[in-house]
Amino acid sequence: MEGAELEPAQDVAAPNAPVRHTGRGCDVMSRFMDVHHGMTGITADQLKQAHQADLDIEKDEGVHFEKAWADPESGTIYCLSEAPSAEAVQRVHERAGHPADEVHAVPLAV
Amino acid sequence: MEGAELEPAQDVAAPNAPVRHTGRGCDVMSRFMDVHHGMTGITADQLKQAHQADLDIEKDEGVHFEKAWADPESGTIYCLSEAPSAEAVQRVHERAGHPADEVHAVPLAV
Repeated sequence: MEGAELEPAQDVAAPNAPVRHTGRGCDVMSRFMDVHHGMTGITADQLKQAHQADLDIEKDEGVHFEKAWADPESGTIYCLSEAPSAEAVQRVHERAGHPADEVHAVPLAV
Repeated sequence: MEGAELEPAQDVAAPNAPVRHTGRGCDVMSRFMDVHHGMTGITADQLKQAHQADLDIEKDEGVHFEKAWADPESGTIYCLSEAPSAEAVQRVHERAGHPADEVHAVPLAV
């Protein structure tokens, strides 16, 4: 039976928390889920362009946006990222023109 | 430069929408993100047990819970699944003892 194995990110302070060497030294990375509201009717192309706008500048903040999912009906978008902080995630989104409404660290994952 | 490729699930009605053969015939599958609130202080073990409780019964509804992420500080949990409907996702969560507060179809993904 397919069991639920914990991801390595189960404890931010754990010794095996991923570390990324950035221009600013060494950041302990965490996973974040951020949420955008008010994007009713977003299209596949618009999602792709918004995601690309993040990818283009993310390295400046030591962030990597792994995935994004969108519900055009409710206008809700979820973005999963690995980053040194929630603030770094929001700075990338703001510079790309689409600040998040919520940013949550998600240290636990299965 | 790492481009943003669209996932096959970009259009629920698209001909390449995944189809799952279930005991009830043939369901066109979609991806869903559901959200649970009020789980402040959830531990890694509790998340693992909750996810396992879903995995144990999901096949009854033709659902598959792919991933779950948790923020113990805000008590927010995000679950990504593939399912024939939002109702099927909620039925599994209810039977497992943890109904979702929101369930969104996320037909677009990058």
